Amino acid sequence: MKPLILITNDDGIEARGIEFLAKQVASLGDVVVVAPDSPRSGQSCAITVTNPLRLFKVKEEGNIKYYKTTGTPVDCVKLAIHGVLERRPDIILSGINHGSNSGVSTVYSGTMGAAYEGAIIGIPSVGFSLCDHSPQADFTPCKEVIQKVVKFVLKNGLPTSVSLNVNVPVGVEIKGIKVCKQAMGYWTEEYEKRVDSHGREFYWLTGYFVNTSPKGEETDEELLSQGYITIVPTSCDRTATTAIPFVKNLL
Amino acid sequence: MKPLILITNDDGIEARGIEFLAKQVASLGDVVVVAPDSPRSGQSCAITVTNPLRLFKVKEEGNIKYYKTTGTPVDCVKLAIHGVLERRPDIILSGINHGSNSGVSTVYSGTMGAAYEGAIIGIPSVGFSLCDHSPQADFTPCKEVIQKVVKFVLKNGLPTSVSLNVNVPVGVEIKGIKVCKQAMGYWTEEYEKRVDSHGREFYWLTGYFVNTSPKGEETDEELLSQGYITIVPTSCDRTATTAIPFVKNLL
Repeated sequence: MKPLILITNDDGIEARGIEFLAKQVASLGDVVVVAPDSPRSGQSCAITVTNPLRLFKVKEEGNIKYYKTTGTPVDCVKLAIHGVLERRPDIILSGINHGSNSGVSTVYSGTMGAAYEGAIIGIPSVGFSLCDHSPQADFTPCKEVIQKVVKFVLKNGLPTSVSLNVNVPVGVEIKGIKVCKQAMGYWTEEYEKRVDSHGREFYWLTGYFVNTSPKGEETDEELLSQGYITIVPTSCDRTATTAIPFVKNLL
Repeated sequence: MKPLILITNDDGIEARGIEFLAKQVASLGDVVVVAPDSPRSGQSCAITVTNPLRLFKVKEEGNIKYYKTTGTPVDCVKLAIHGVLERRPDIILSGINHGSNSGVSTVYSGTMGAAYEGAIIGIPSVGFSLCDHSPQADFTPCKEVIQKVVKFVLKNGLPTSVSLNVNVPVGVEIKGIKVCKQAMGYWTEEYEKRVDSHGREFYWLTGYFVNTSPKGEETDEELLSQGYITIVPTSCDRTATTAIPFVKNLL
């Protein structure tokens, strides 16, 4: 039986990135796309708790079926498993995201939220992001790494609780692929305070990332800036095991 | 100067749990509550990217100021830092959540989302949850652990990237406090498929948690069921460092 490949994203069913990804892997298995009906950037691992969800079939092209839902990326994975697929998928892919998901930003990423969900339910999962926010982004630089990663994961699986976060740089000559850790850091000057047409204040998210990882350390942020495609293995286990002895001091 | 304590939650400004928490710590510092204007359960680390946010002062009682926002728990932390507080808070508290946030469910938790945000920006942060979903829950069993944890963290801080996830059991005699790891597992049978009054199908989230951690292992799920209050140190660094050699095989 051909591998069953489930694909979702956080840019929504109409994004170029998800269609590119589906077409790239259609030679490796049967593909089912279940994606949000509109963009859900910054949705992290959010789930829809207090509202009902809707699920619609959009189209079928060759061995690729497209569905959309009214939910988040994680909702899409859950709904696909429970309401669309007739068997367990062999792999879950998320993306290709329009824009990077490197460093600590993975915490907010709906693209990676879907990949964490895959890891939780024990299905090998990979998030792909291109460092270009444009709706018209050219995803060609992602071709090779998609083939390489998906073939490897279909053959070898991934360790328990682990999913992969793949970022592809733009505007540079690609030097190769590196497996590394995520950069640590934070976002700063995050809001513009403005006044609406009725004289009421509002805040709009903006800001920039400050990388606090030591200079020269092989993090995704650093390697992307050097022109490498980065692959960070990520975990859905949040326990900070090494901090347990410190915290025991409070007992 | 007295410590500055920022408090948020995911059940919203009107929840009993957040008022209980604010009053419990008012003797330890000046308290500013910045919470969502309505419940935001399951919002994880979601941020509001495509809409403006509003911020309103609600009331002031003694040394506790209350604000509400139209955003998620993480938005509340960010907005508090950028639009409300005149100096950096010494600690961020989230909760008390109406309902548990143990095991892998922390991935979806808005309560813990706010605590992860605190860890990202380098402020010691703690999420508190009571294992009772009722809006009228009695938070008295949380009193002692709140005092103990907040005093310890104000005095000693927390390791870089680490925040604490505190869960308090109900319906049992409390045996003590344990510092431990989170249970691994997954949710299953997650949707009820129903038909609305117009004959259209919809899905509603439901299901139950399957604990896949080895029996007898000291996880939060196991210890809560035995009657212990649990404290899990959690990390906002998602890198699965031990998986790096395995993933390098794909290069």
